[in-house]
Amino acid sequence: METANIQTTIRNSQGVSKAPFHTSIFFSISKGSDKIGGLLEHLEVIKKHNINLTRIESRPSKTEKSDYDFFLDLEYGSNTLKEVEKVIEDLESRGVKVTIVSENPQVDSSDSSIPWFPRKLSDLDLYANKVLEMGDELSSDHPGATDPVYRARRKEIATIAATYKHGHEIPRINYTKEETETWGRVYKKLKELFANYACQQHTFVFPLLEQNCGYSEDNIPQLQDISNFLQECTGFRIRPVQGLLSSRDFLNGLAFRVFHATQYIRHSSVPLYTPEPDVCHELLGHVPLFADPDFADFSQEIGLASIGASDEDIERLSTCYWFTVEFGICKEGDKIKAYGAGLLSSTGELEYCISDKPEKKPFDPFVTCKTKYPITTFQPLYYVAESFADAKEKMREFADSLKKPFAIRYNPYTTSIELLDNKDKLLNICNQIRLQADTLADAIQKFKSL
Amino acid sequence: METANIQTTIRNSQGVSKAPFHTSIFFSISKGSDKIGGLLEHLEVIKKHNINLTRIESRPSKTEKSDYDFFLDLEYGSNTLKEVEKVIEDLESRGVKVTIVSENPQVDSSDSSIPWFPRKLSDLDLYANKVLEMGDELSSDHPGATDPVYRARRKEIATIAATYKHGHEIPRINYTKEETETWGRVYKKLKELFANYACQQHTFVFPLLEQNCGYSEDNIPQLQDISNFLQECTGFRIRPVQGLLSSRDFLNGLAFRVFHATQYIRHSSVPLYTPEPDVCHELLGHVPLFADPDFADFSQEIGLASIGASDEDIERLSTCYWFTVEFGICKEGDKIKAYGAGLLSSTGELEYCISDKPEKKPFDPFVTCKTKYPITTFQPLYYVAESFADAKEKMREFADSLKKPFAIRYNPYTTSIELLDNKDKLLNICNQIRLQADTLADAIQKFKSL
Amino acid sequence: METANIQTTIRNSQGVSKAPFHTSIFFSISKGSDKIGGLLEHLEVIKKHNINLTRIESRPSKTEKSDYDFFLDLEYGSNTLKEVEKVIEDLESRGVKVTIVSENPQVDSSDSSIPWFPRKLSDLDLYANKVLEMGDELSSDHPGATDPVYRARRKEIATIAATYKHGHEIPRINYTKEETETWGRVYKKLKELFANYACQQHTFVFPLLEQNCGYSEDNIPQLQDISNFLQECTGFRIRPVQGLLSSRDFLNGLAFRVFHATQYIRHSSVPLYTPEPDVCHELLGHVPLFADPDFADFSQEIGLASIGASDEDIERLSTCYWFTVEFGICKEGDKIKAYGAGLLSSTGELEYCISDKPEKKPFDPFVTCKTKYPITTFQPLYYVAESFADAKEKMREFADSLKKPFAIRYNPYTTSIELLDNKDKLLNICNQIRLQADTLADAIQKFKSL
Amino acid sequence: METANIQTTIRNSQGVSKAPFHTSIFFSISKGSDKIGGLLEHLEVIKKHNINLTRIESRPSKTEKSDYDFFLDLEYGSNTLKEVEKVIEDLESRGVKVTIVSENPQVDSSDSSIPWFPRKLSDLDLYANKVLEMGDELSSDHPGATDPVYRARRKEIATIAATYKHGHEIPRINYTKEETETWGRVYKKLKELFANYACQQHTFVFPLLEQNCGYSEDNIPQLQDISNFLQECTGFRIRPVQGLLSSRDFLNGLAFRVFHATQYIRHSSVPLYTPEPDVCHELLGHVPLFADPDFADFSQEIGLASIGASDEDIERLSTCYWFTVEFGICKEGDKIKAYGAGLLSSTGELEYCISDKPEKKPFDPFVTCKTKYPITTFQPLYYVAESFADAKEKMREFADSLKKPFAIRYNPYTTSIELLDNKDKLLNICNQIRLQADTLADAIQKFKSL
Repeated sequence: METANIQTTIRNSQGVSKAPFHTSIFFSISKGSDKIGGLLEHLEVIKKHNINLTRIESRPSKTEKSDYDFFLDLEYGSNTLKEVEKVIEDLESRGVKVTIVSENPQVDSSDSSIPWFPRKLSDLDLYANKVLEMGDELSSDHPGATDPVYRARRKEIATIAATYKHGHEIPRINYTKEETETWGRVYKKLKELFANYACQQHTFVFPLLEQNCGYSEDNIPQLQDISNFLQECTGFRIRPVQGLLSSRDFLNGLAFRVFHATQYIRHSSVPLYTPEPDVCHELLGHVPLFADPDFADFSQEIGLASIGASDEDIERLSTCYWFTVEFGICKEGDKIKAYGAGLLSSTGELEYCISDKPEKKPFDPFVTCKTKYPITTFQPLYYVAESFADAKEKMREFADSLKKPFAIRYNPYTTSIELLDNKDKLLNICNQIRLQADTLADAIQKFKSL
Repeated sequence: METANIQTTIRNSQGVSKAPFHTSIFFSISKGSDKIGGLLEHLEVIKKHNINLTRIESRPSKTEKSDYDFFLDLEYGSNTLKEVEKVIEDLESRGVKVTIVSENPQVDSSDSSIPWFPRKLSDLDLYANKVLEMGDELSSDHPGATDPVYRARRKEIATIAATYKHGHEIPRINYTKEETETWGRVYKKLKELFANYACQQHTFVFPLLEQNCGYSEDNIPQLQDISNFLQECTGFRIRPVQGLLSSRDFLNGLAFRVFHATQYIRHSSVPLYTPEPDVCHELLGHVPLFADPDFADFSQEIGLASIGASDEDIERLSTCYWFTVEFGICKEGDKIKAYGAGLLSSTGELEYCISDKPEKKPFDPFVTCKTKYPITTFQPLYYVAESFADAKEKMREFADSLKKPFAIRYNPYTTSIELLDNKDKLLNICNQIRLQADTLADAIQKFKSL
Repeated sequence: METANIQTTIRNSQGVSKAPFHTSIFFSISKGSDKIGGLLEHLEVIKKHNINLTRIESRPSKTEKSDYDFFLDLEYGSNTLKEVEKVIEDLESRGVKVTIVSENPQVDSSDSSIPWFPRKLSDLDLYANKVLEMGDELSSDHPGATDPVYRARRKEIATIAATYKHGHEIPRINYTKEETETWGRVYKKLKELFANYACQQHTFVFPLLEQNCGYSEDNIPQLQDISNFLQECTGFRIRPVQGLLSSRDFLNGLAFRVFHATQYIRHSSVPLYTPEPDVCHELLGHVPLFADPDFADFSQEIGLASIGASDEDIERLSTCYWFTVEFGICKEGDKIKAYGAGLLSSTGELEYCISDKPEKKPFDPFVTCKTKYPITTFQPLYYVAESFADAKEKMREFADSLKKPFAIRYNPYTTSIELLDNKDKLLNICNQIRLQADTLADAIQKFKSL
Repeated sequence: METANIQTTIRNSQGVSKAPFHTSIFFSISKGSDKIGGLLEHLEVIKKHNINLTRIESRPSKTEKSDYDFFLDLEYGSNTLKEVEKVIEDLESRGVKVTIVSENPQVDSSDSSIPWFPRKLSDLDLYANKVLEMGDELSSDHPGATDPVYRARRKEIATIAATYKHGHEIPRINYTKEETETWGRVYKKLKELFANYACQQHTFVFPLLEQNCGYSEDNIPQLQDISNFLQECTGFRIRPVQGLLSSRDFLNGLAFRVFHATQYIRHSSVPLYTPEPDVCHELLGHVPLFADPDFADFSQEIGLASIGASDEDIERLSTCYWFTVEFGICKEGDKIKAYGAGLLSSTGELEYCISDKPEKKPFDPFVTCKTKYPITTFQPLYYVAESFADAKEKMREFADSLKKPFAIRYNPYTTSIELLDNKDKLLNICNQIRLQADTLADAIQKFKSL
């Protein structure tokens, strides 16, 4: 029996990291500040303590024009926790307000109304070791659980993701003949089904992936090629991930138009089944959709809603994600088609979801977000989107309804998330509205046939 | 005698490429087109001819929703030119409208009201071999003209730029001790001057470059590190270039927030002089400014104005560029400071430009664009900007006055330039205005102290 | 037995006018047009025919900058219909495209994709005689049907409305002691109920009406005073109407922020009952709400949706009007309050509608528009609005879903409805967006506590 | 010798009112305020004092949603000034913040950062008696100074303006045969000149004024007819004024799209000369231009800039007004035409201004605002506008440069000026931007030939 839905389970739970002890801290100082006395002095404070500084970054402040923002990553043993606390005390005694981004519960984060969230692409590097399950830790019922070769391969590929940093090219994997054959069997079977069941956005882009990104029955495409392609289409990027991220971390990635994708493949013994996301699921299910502008907008909308959201709201957004990006179906003329990756990568559920067997309701995030769903069987209920544009509108309305004490925006130029907490940033948006009105006026003026 | 201005000459002339024969063609087909019969058939047409296809790219059309865009690079000998013409005839006989992007004058581009221009970051790869002067072709009065070791080194570094492709990391150069010493002498001398003469945007960001990008007296920073830093600050990127680009190509790069920078260094015999841009000029003069949001906007504004501009307008924009990005000075309270890279990298002119000797007029692109200037002596006249924000406004007004039969916009998500030639794109801008009004409303609502 | 709902029946049916023969025609000519030869020549054409020209207006064209628009009202006997047709033929033979705005079915309107609709406030003068039932034609079961004094008084007041023209002051009525006493009884009874059942927008503005517009138990306020007051609050105006307008005409008025109100009062024999709208219903039910900006926007939204709508859509909008402006209830904290004028002017239904007896559903125009409702009994079902702002959003969404081949906007400066059919008008909107972004930036900049 | 410019002198000076003692006060109370205890109690406070309340108005607050705004006009003798001060003390002791709008210097206005300015159309009623020179007070060199009949007539017409209130129809004047003949002589002479010297906006609208507003050689048009016509064209209104308003008051009127026009005519003895504005100047010079949308916007722009401006800025704006609305000339293709009313109503200066004799400079408010000018001779210097749209842009830029501690906007629905001092109003503008983006999207979507 096929239990296709299992494969995306890990996208939908929250968990605790098992990573080694380290902490990130963030603070700002102003250019000419007397009481501080220079940029480097701060770092000397830290060097005095028995702590390893694995990142020192300073940037022009996104908040105050003449300030500098500092980002520091500290690595320490569990017995040096007290040292970390002293570092923070030291800095604070100098009048610097420190924000702690602790991955470990031991260090108390200074209370603040605005929770920590990733503000730039490289902040996602912090997630590298925050996976809930490592890619090489297979549960006992995993088809590859007792295959030492498979487990070693999983570990090898997981290491790539664990050490990947933003800005670098994603290492290419030299997939084995056996791996490629497994991919080929899935590829062939699914491609037959796409013509009838996949939404037009999927079938439109699929030939382009074959032509530009090495999609074919006898080749497993490389994440970097796909990431380059998607960036040109919609600005979406792929980041390799070694296993299951928490819902918050995974959704936060979408806020930056970043999709965390696994790079390993399922066990060859059961090619049409996987209890977790693998390259087949990511590349055949998810990737084609991210080339569609409306779908990309929709996905980022969920992501932005998740930034700094409460745990309850993360749960709600995660449920919306499940019923759309993973198991969504949509209207297409008078037909219904699949656009959820969980469906598009499941040889069994793809046909079933379009049939009359399951229940179907119109997608409405206010309702959808509260729906319970099984994860080991086919879905008994699907939510039908009118269109991606419509789903995006509805998701924005839902996002607006979530209570948050702060406002943000995504700055596509710097691929960062900005807190809208001062006049300059509001004025900047006014200016952009004006610019776009100008651009629009120019375009209308020059419209040939207008 | 120092003739500092020479160093930026090459940014200000237009010339003819000496690159080998190749041509790019562009066409669109629709997904379900009968008369065409499939994506691959088109490529078969080309393979039949004796031509090397060095790039085949297909993408979702930016113009019509259900179309595919094709980008092809053809390489051929001069005796196979007729074959290229046949390829185009073949394609056109199938009802496909081909746009030729010829780098060689031999193939006539089909007449079209909209001239070719780069539409995405990777289109800038086409410029790699379109330099007016190669980095290794030194004129007889160049300080390194008779130094074979220097010339070989120049050639080596030029090759990096010539083969660089968008999406890859810029190769790091292992600079020699001699090169680093030359850099060190310039660095030390200029750093002393910055405190008094450089604008605050420059002095604000300089310590960050030291801390994050390896700027120091005994190290020549690497372009990739700088590019990463700038992307976070303003979205600007660095591309290596082997020598002088035409004004059009260089300015077109700015439209994408791309700055073409040389990677080699001046000859060690005359460390405070260079007749052309080198790493000292790029890294000490240009780079710090591109970290400032208003300056970055201003620079992109010139770039966007250059897209598809007439040769006369390119000349005008190029003159504006000269008097701002290269030799601009600006008000700072009741003082005048330098922000032009030609000034900030010239130990002599930096002091001179602020003095009472030269003439100073308010920056006004309508006037500035017509000003003649010397390139081998200090400037007799400088244009003073009120602020970068003000210069940006003025430049936009000037850009609006240039006659163009089409409208464009830069899409920061896909880092591409879009032709605004159909309803969907206009509607998209309307939608973005709406989104920004929403974002603004949310921010106003949540403003603590409002 | 009280059958309160009857009173608003006439707002909800469509009928045929009984007005005398007259027709309006509209055409444009350009300033320097040769083939036309002057403004006056056109009018000579008409004077030659045996037709009375009751209005000749020429205005700068709202469509083409250098054109003039002409508006003509023709009055004729039924036997001179052919003459009217000749006028139009004459004009058309001169190359002038004539649009006929016939109130009588005999003259065929030239087919055009854009139906006639009022474009400026004075166009509403055309409705003066288009009432479905005259104010003096009482049905046999009307309480005043057999009272000749009451009927004469109705006729007298109807004449005021019939001859009222935009731009003039609404004549003041010297209400009799008997009329004022009837008003007083209704006033006193309803005012007791308002505190518990009326929405806060109603109770907020009521004291202002007492203080500024002469609302009191012993005085019937004058329409002109109310109109002046509303104009200052929200820009809404009152126009006197002699009786029942068609749904289309009535809703079209709302598009201009014009509310057509009756000026007569119910028969004194049954003061708490009226089978039709009267001053009590208009002034105590409707007027207070029109002072609220969100409610005013909501009402205009219905009105704009009705402009040029199909008969089916008029029916849908009319049903939405019924369930909101006439019989709407809304949330207020954890309570439910009445805001519909049919409720607020009914001593019986006001208490009932808030009780548990009737069914209540959330207001959703897509659903509401299809609901059947009784007109002679209390409503069995009410739709509950979240807030007026929310209802406005929902109504706009519904309006967007109505199929219309043209786009319009209301220009509040000229109080006219503009067809958005050329570049200039689109550019004008771009310009206004820019202006508003400027205004907003100025306001944000100057916000004291921001 | 003709000294045409005299005629507009009175628009350009500031003076002191000679009106009787009265004061306006303004305050807000909230709906449920305990410490206040009801709306009427406040008024009782005033009634206790020996003061005549000539206006009591209460309105929904434009600032806080649940507040009421009160506007009171107090009339008192000079010996009851102390009583007025007590009223204010009384109100303030109840926790009400009172703003005094004193027309008489004796009552100190409570200091406030935001000066008083008219906020709604009816506030302009306050200007009725604030004229610097009464219409019937003729200086000794006035052509009608010694003509008792003329002086009596002037007094009669001045009374109409002095008692006019917003919302009423402007009384029609039954001009005498002599008056009409004077008009006729000016009319005939000027009309001959218009074809060659008046701008196209003037010649375009002039025939419409003849056709719709009774403009003709043998009829002096009535202000109300003109006001109705202008309201339909651009939303401009005419208000009768008895004589010279201060620059501030006159310009403030323009902020509401209100033009204060005199209703009397020059003395018949010198028909082509007047030392002050009269109907000839207003109706033949000013009125046609106010029918042009761009000119109307430009005029309102000056008006809005004058709201709450410092005396120095009023002076600058007044100078800009002089060189545009009164004595402006503009480009028209390769010709120069007159659009200033001072020119268009001067038989001598109209020809002169277009000739080569006077100096001409491009209109630039930053320069223009500082220019000195003679008022008794032809102008030696004129400023040339590129177009009204361009002049409007420039004026807005100039307006932005004026220092004001508050931001305002004109609300065309309520014809009021709103202080943008709370979140709700900023959100309202966001909402309007969104609405306009929606409207634009709808229009683009439906554009036939797009």
